[in-house]
Amino acid sequence: MSTLILLRHGESIWNKENRFTGWADPDLSEKGKDEACRAGQLLKSFSLDFDICFTSVLKRAIKTHLYAAEEINRLWVPVVRDWRLNERHYGALQGLNKAETTDKYGAEQVKLWRRSFDVKPPQVSNADPRYPAHDIRYKEVDLSLLPHGESLEDTVARVIPCWNELILPEIQKKKRVMIAAHGNSLRALVMYLQQMTPAEIVYEEIPTGRPLIYELGTDLRPERRYYLG
Amino acid sequence: MSTLILLRHGESIWNKENRFTGWADPDLSEKGKDEACRAGQLLKSFSLDFDICFTSVLKRAIKTHLYAAEEINRLWVPVVRDWRLNERHYGALQGLNKAETTDKYGAEQVKLWRRSFDVKPPQVSNADPRYPAHDIRYKEVDLSLLPHGESLEDTVARVIPCWNELILPEIQKKKRVMIAAHGNSLRALVMYLQQMTPAEIVYEEIPTGRPLIYELGTDLRPERRYYLG
Repeated sequence: MSTLILLRHGESIWNKENRFTGWADPDLSEKGKDEACRAGQLLKSFSLDFDICFTSVLKRAIKTHLYAAEEINRLWVPVVRDWRLNERHYGALQGLNKAETTDKYGAEQVKLWRRSFDVKPPQVSNADPRYPAHDIRYKEVDLSLLPHGESLEDTVARVIPCWNELILPEIQKKKRVMIAAHGNSLRALVMYLQQMTPAEIVYEEIPTGRPLIYELGTDLRPERRYYLG
Repeated sequence: MSTLILLRHGESIWNKENRFTGWADPDLSEKGKDEACRAGQLLKSFSLDFDICFTSVLKRAIKTHLYAAEEINRLWVPVVRDWRLNERHYGALQGLNKAETTDKYGAEQVKLWRRSFDVKPPQVSNADPRYPAHDIRYKEVDLSLLPHGESLEDTVARVIPCWNELILPEIQKKKRVMIAAHGNSLRALVMYLQQMTPAEIVYEEIPTGRPLIYELGTDLRPERRYYLG
């Protein structure tokens, strides 16, 4: 039996401002920091420990992991950061206020962008500063992999290789893994682990700052899942 | 030409209390946190960047790295934590107040413990909680490598293999490396890089929170060294 801990980052400043965030890199809000610390306290009180952590390369997930790890005195545990655990890239919606976007495009269109499985948001151009090739943190990523705006399906398509190449081998080595990431990269993982259909995953919501625990059987299929707190 | 950044952690709570620290794990003091942030600001203002970081597994070095990295917006840079970058293990002196220890053992003896190259401090027993085998962060380290109390010579003997196995290969791959560590583990490295004798290294002091920059030539020997700030 292996234990896997999924943790969605706490509230960011852009969550608070109701803006589409995606690969933009706002910091946690004060509330987000508190949520992260609380997640660490929950892990501690339920004696849930980890041997290795994975995060995206975005500050809100990195810091959620750090605040939680510090609460449980596990800052020294190895950590691997991978861009493939990033939030879904929201294309040209990134930075826009969600309410204003609804006023402009209509609730139906926005719902389609936010809640469908395979509809991409409006794409950014190569010249747009939101195109990840302009950010040095992606300088070693093959250009063909960098998105101009992703559907959830696109996000799944990069999260699962990260799972198979980096995370699963650790679980197979009997390591207890924690993944601190984002609403949609974690949904991608949940979909894969629970073999959900596109119709099922669109209704799945993962709350911020509440550790989601999977107990994986010897075949590494989930036998039980529950939230802490 | 490769650039190497060495950073000694900022003041810890035990530094402030004038206690022998070694492998004990006190947090940074407020002053220590400020020193770490200032180190990041210095790196930023001198346009010194890094592609990979190494730290010990002790909180004061881990957090010094994190505070500095956040200032320069480099929290996403890969980080490797290795126990071999820890401070010198101070044996049975760990936790004792330096002034009280001087009163008890005399200034000459304390100077010998603190400043000689090959004199070990009083050793801890296997049952002593300060023996690292009791700390789960060292559970995967071969018992024969875990110290009961180290001389600077002993510290050199574990820092250099870490350099050769983990750090040097990154420099050879043209990565810009930052190492956030401790007074004695960094002295061990400085001794090795500059090919100092034991008599020379005992006079070498590395200040806290001031980035020490080495420019390494194509043969990876230091051609220039300087402090920022």
